[in-house]
Amino acid sequence: MYLENIKNPSDIKSFSNDQLKALADEMRGLLIKKVSTHGGHFGPNLGMVETTIALHYVFDSPKDKMVYDVSHQTYCHKMLTGRAYGFLDENRYDDITGYSSPDESEHDFFTVGHTSTSISLASGLVKARELKKESGNVIAIIGDGSLGGGEALEGLNIATELDSNFIIVVNDNDMSIAENHGGLYGNLKLLRDTDGKAECNLFKAVGLDYVFVKNGNDINELIKAFKLVKDSKKPVVVHICTQKGMGYKPAQDDRETFHWTMPFDVETGKVLVNFDGENYETLTSDFLLEKMKNDDKIVAITAGTPAVMGFTLEKRKKAGKQFVDVGIAEETAVAMASGIAKGGAKPVFGVYSTFMQRTYDQISQDLCVNKNPATIVVFCASVYGMSDVTHVGFYDIPMISNIPGLVYLAPTSKEEYFAMLDWGMEQNKYPVAIRVPGNGVISSDRPVKNDYSDIDKYQIVEKGSRIAIIAVGSFFELGKQCACEIENKLGVKATLINPIYLTGLDCDLLNNLKENHDIVITLEDGVIDGGFGEKIARYYGKDSVKVLNYGLKKQFYDRYNIDDVLKENHLTTEQITNDIKNIL
Amino acid sequence: MYLENIKNPSDIKSFSNDQLKALADEMRGLLIKKVSTHGGHFGPNLGMVETTIALHYVFDSPKDKMVYDVSHQTYCHKMLTGRAYGFLDENRYDDITGYSSPDESEHDFFTVGHTSTSISLASGLVKARELKKESGNVIAIIGDGSLGGGEALEGLNIATELDSNFIIVVNDNDMSIAENHGGLYGNLKLLRDTDGKAECNLFKAVGLDYVFVKNGNDINELIKAFKLVKDSKKPVVVHICTQKGMGYKPAQDDRETFHWTMPFDVETGKVLVNFDGENYETLTSDFLLEKMKNDDKIVAITAGTPAVMGFTLEKRKKAGKQFVDVGIAEETAVAMASGIAKGGAKPVFGVYSTFMQRTYDQISQDLCVNKNPATIVVFCASVYGMSDVTHVGFYDIPMISNIPGLVYLAPTSKEEYFAMLDWGMEQNKYPVAIRVPGNGVISSDRPVKNDYSDIDKYQIVEKGSRIAIIAVGSFFELGKQCACEIENKLGVKATLINPIYLTGLDCDLLNNLKENHDIVITLEDGVIDGGFGEKIARYYGKDSVKVLNYGLKKQFYDRYNIDDVLKENHLTTEQITNDIKNIL
Repeated sequence: MYLENIKNPSDIKSFSNDQLKALADEMRGLLIKKVSTHGGHFGPNLGMVETTIALHYVFDSPKDKMVYDVSHQTYCHKMLTGRAYGFLDENRYDDITGYSSPDESEHDFFTVGHTSTSISLASGLVKARELKKESGNVIAIIGDGSLGGGEALEGLNIATELDSNFIIVVNDNDMSIAENHGGLYGNLKLLRDTDGKAECNLFKAVGLDYVFVKNGNDINELIKAFKLVKDSKKPVVVHICTQKGMGYKPAQDDRETFHWTMPFDVETGKVLVNFDGENYETLTSDFLLEKMKNDDKIVAITAGTPAVMGFTLEKRKKAGKQFVDVGIAEETAVAMASGIAKGGAKPVFGVYSTFMQRTYDQISQDLCVNKNPATIVVFCASVYGMSDVTHVGFYDIPMISNIPGLVYLAPTSKEEYFAMLDWGMEQNKYPVAIRVPGNGVISSDRPVKNDYSDIDKYQIVEKGSRIAIIAVGSFFELGKQCACEIENKLGVKATLINPIYLTGLDCDLLNNLKENHDIVITLEDGVIDGGFGEKIARYYGKDSVKVLNYGLKKQFYDRYNIDDVLKENHLTTEQITNDIKNIL
Repeated sequence: MYLENIKNPSDIKSFSNDQLKALADEMRGLLIKKVSTHGGHFGPNLGMVETTIALHYVFDSPKDKMVYDVSHQTYCHKMLTGRAYGFLDENRYDDITGYSSPDESEHDFFTVGHTSTSISLASGLVKARELKKESGNVIAIIGDGSLGGGEALEGLNIATELDSNFIIVVNDNDMSIAENHGGLYGNLKLLRDTDGKAECNLFKAVGLDYVFVKNGNDINELIKAFKLVKDSKKPVVVHICTQKGMGYKPAQDDRETFHWTMPFDVETGKVLVNFDGENYETLTSDFLLEKMKNDDKIVAITAGTPAVMGFTLEKRKKAGKQFVDVGIAEETAVAMASGIAKGGAKPVFGVYSTFMQRTYDQISQDLCVNKNPATIVVFCASVYGMSDVTHVGFYDIPMISNIPGLVYLAPTSKEEYFAMLDWGMEQNKYPVAIRVPGNGVISSDRPVKNDYSDIDKYQIVEKGSRIAIIAVGSFFELGKQCACEIENKLGVKATLINPIYLTGLDCDLLNNLKENHDIVITLEDGVIDGGFGEKIARYYGKDSVKVLNYGLKKQFYDRYNIDDVLKENHLTTEQITNDIKNIL
C-alpha cells in the first residue's frame, strides 16, 4: 500500500518504475472499490490512472498548475494530492466532491463540472503568470469528447497567441459520454492511425506544437512525453491515446454505460439499484419514437447526453436519422433546432437545465428573435434534481423566462407534460420550452388542455376565497398540500391555481382574485430572484392584496440535503401555513 | 442602371460577363453613396459585391437557401433580392434594416446580428431538407473573423456529420472588425500562400471537402467555383479570398475604421459627424492605460471589439501585453478573465451588453461559482443604446443579476463609475460587473464611495417622506426629475435613493422606509421582468407599502424611437407623477 503514505504528489518522484506501476494497480483497485459501492464517474478515471501518475511524477504541482476539464477524470489526481482518504476510507467517501475543488486542495484551481472550459480557464493562468513574470508550467487536461464544445475550440484557437508555456493534454479515448460526433474525430483517428504523423493535423492547423503518445496507459511513454514538453516556451498539445474503462473489462466493453455509474456488482458489472416505476427520460423517448413512426419530420436532438431523453443505443438506432447528437455543443443544438423549425420540420431538443445555461444567446437570438417553433425539454430544473454546485438546475426560470418570445411551460403531471410536448411539436408559432417535473412521475386525472396557444391563461384548480395559492410545476403538489393544511388548521378553503405558463401574467385572473382574496402566495421550484413569483408581486404592487413568494434563496447550493434546503427556505406546509396564519 | 430592373435574383442569370461587371460597379457605387451619407457596415459589403452576384448567378434563391453570418455583408444580397429601393432611393434608406430579415424577404431565412451563428443555423435547414426529402442547396456564408467564435467552430465540426449538400463559403478578408486573433488565422494564411494546396488544412481536418478561390473579387473565378460545388452531395467549404473595402481606397487602407462607419466625406474619407465632449469608451481606456503605468498586473480584455473600451490601434500598442483580444469569443474572454484573476492579476473585460449574452454559463460557472475577482464592464445596457433588435442591450439585469455571487453595480455618474471600476480591479473577493451609464457622461459632485464591499447597501441621496424613489443607474436622473415634479405638483418631498447594487436588497433600509413612506417606486433602464424592481415588490409583498415598478415591457424592440418607447412604458416624469397622484 503506497497511497496511505502519499501526502503530497512530490512523494512519488522518488518511486522506481515498478513502484509507479504498483501504485497504478492500487489506485485502479480503489477506483473499482469506491465507484462500485458508491457510484461515480468510472470509465474516464480508470483510463487516466497512468496519465495522472506521470503528470505528478514529471511536474511540480501546485507550482505547475493542472486544470482538468469537466472533472470526470480527477479522482486519481485527488488520490495523489492529499485526498486519498476519500478513497481509502469508506466512511470518508463523501468528504470529497466528485469534481475539482479549490476549497479542498491547493492542487485544484477551479471548481469545474461543465465541459470544455479547461483550455480557456488555464489560458488565464498562463496570462497571469506572464503579467506577473512568474515561472512554472500550466497544463490543461481535456478529453476528446469535450473538444467539440465551443468554449474548448475557442480556447484551442486562442492558445497559440499566448506564445509562452502552455501544455494541453488531449486525452483521446475515442469516446464522449456516448460515441463522439463531429468531423474533428476523423482527424483524431487519422492521427492515431498514423502515430501522429499525418500532415493534416487539427492542432497544428491552429498553430500549436504537437506531441503524440501512442500508449497513454504506459507510464514510461507518458513520462517521456511530459519531460519533453516540460518548460516548453510555446503552447503544445500532447495527444495521448487511452483506454476508457482500462482495467475493468465490463467498463472497457460498454464504455457508455460505465462513463458514470450507480453502485454495481464487481463480478457481473450489473447495477445494484433497481429503479422501479416510471421516469420521464424513458417516457419521453418512448413518446417521441411513437410519434416518429407516423411523422418523418420529427427529430430529437441531444448535445452529447442522449440519456437525458432516454435515448439508449438501441433507441437511437430505432430513431435513425430522426435522432441527432451534435456532441457537447449546446449552442449548435439550439441553433440547429431553430433552423430545423424554420425548414418546416419538428425539432425537440432535450437538455439538462444546468447545461441549458450554455446556450442563452442562441435561445435569445437564434431562436426567439426568429420566432421559430422549436421545442426545448428541460430536465432536472428542480430542487429534487442534481445537487453538485456545478449541476444544480433551478436557476432556469430567471434565465430563460425573461427572454421575450419564449413560451416556458411548467407541467404539473405526466398527462400535462405530454399534452404540452405534443402541442409544442405540432404548433408553428412559438419557441416553446417545457420544464419537466422534478418530483417524480405523478399521474393525475385533472383535465389537461390539448392546446396551449391561449398564452398566459392560468388554470383555477380549486375555487376558494381569501387565500390563493399559485403553485408552479413540481411545486403544484406542495400547493395542494398547503391548501389542505390551510383548510385544516385555519378553516379557510384556499383557491388553488396551476399557472401553466412561466413567461407571463394572466392579468384577468389576477385581477379577479382581488375581489375575494387577501393573500396570494406563489410556490416555485427555483430561485426566487428574477423568477415567477416576483412577477405576481409586481402585479399586485399597488393593490392591497398581500403577496408571499416562496422559492429558493439566490445562492449557490452544493451537495445539499433536500429536506434541509426546503426547511431553510420556508418550504414546508407547516411553515407556509404558519406564515399565513401570522398575517391573516 | 441595372438594379432598378432587378426584381428577383434570377433576373441576373441571363447577364453577360460585362453586364455582371457593370452591375458590380453600380452596386459598389450605391454602397459608397448610401453608407457615406447614412452610415452602416461598409468594408465587409464592399468586399462581397462579386461574391453576392456570383452566388445569385449560380444558385436559385430562395429554393437554394443562403444564410449570411452576422449580416455585416448582406447589403448586396438585399440589392439583388427585391430591396434595391433601400439603396437607390435616399428616402427609403431606412425602409430596410442593416441585417438579414425574413420579415423583409423570402430570400432571408433568419434575423441575424450576432456573429458565428450561420453554420449552425444553416445546418438546421440542411437537416429539415433531409427529413422532408426535399432538394436544393443550403449555403452558409461566413467571414474569417466570425470563425473564431465557439458556435461557428461547433458548427464546422458538426457539419461533416450531415453528410449531404451543405456549402460553407468562408469569406477570408484577413480581418475581423479589427485584426484577427487566434491560431486558425495562421492556417488561413498558409492556405492563401499555397493557393489552398497546403496539406495541413483546418477544414479538411474537420472532415470537410475544400475548394480554394484565390481571387474572391473576380466574378468569373467565383462562378466557376460555385458551379463546381452546386448540388454537391457532401458538405464542402469554398474558401474565397476577398479585399475588405474593395473599390474605396480609404476603406482598403484602414479596414478597421471602415468596418462600420458613420457618414463620411467621400473625397477625404473623413467622418462628418463631430463628437464633442466625453464618452465612456475613451474615458475607460484612458483610465486603464493610466493605471497600467503603475501596475503590470492590469489587463484589459476584448472579444473582437476593442472599440468598446476605446482601445484604438494606438492605445492597444501602448497597452502592449496588458491588452488581450481573444477574437469574437466571449466565452473564452470570461473564462480567461476568471483564470487571470485566479492567477493573481487584474482582468477587466469590456463587452457590449448584447454580446455578454453569449457567455452566460461562463459568468455563472467559470467565474461566479469560483468567486474569482474579475471585472466585467458592460456597455450599451440601456434604452439609449443600440436599437436594432439583435443589438438591444437592456435584457442584462434579469440575465446576470440573478446569478449568485456576482456583484452587479449601477453607477449614476462618471465619478461613481470610475470609483466602482477602481474598486472592482483592486478588491479580491467578488466577481464584479459594472453597468456603464447609457445616458451620456454626467458629472456629479455627489460624494461617491471608494469601497463597495458593504454589499447591497443603498444610498439615500435625498431624505423625504411618503414617497420613496429608487432610481437605478442611467435612470437616476429620471428619478431626480420625478422627485422635483412630485414636489412641484403634489407638494410632497420624496426620498431619493441610489441603490448602487442590482444584485441584492438593502433590507434594513427598505424596512426603515416603512416608517414614513406609503409608496415606493423603482425606476430601471431595462426590462422589468426578472429585473431589479420586482425584488423590491417582493420585499414589500406582505406590507402595506405600495410598490410601482417602472422599466421596459418584456418584448423585442427594433429600431425604435426612444421617446416613443419611454412614453409607451410610462417613463416620463409627467406619467409617473400622475400615476402617483392617482394612488396617493
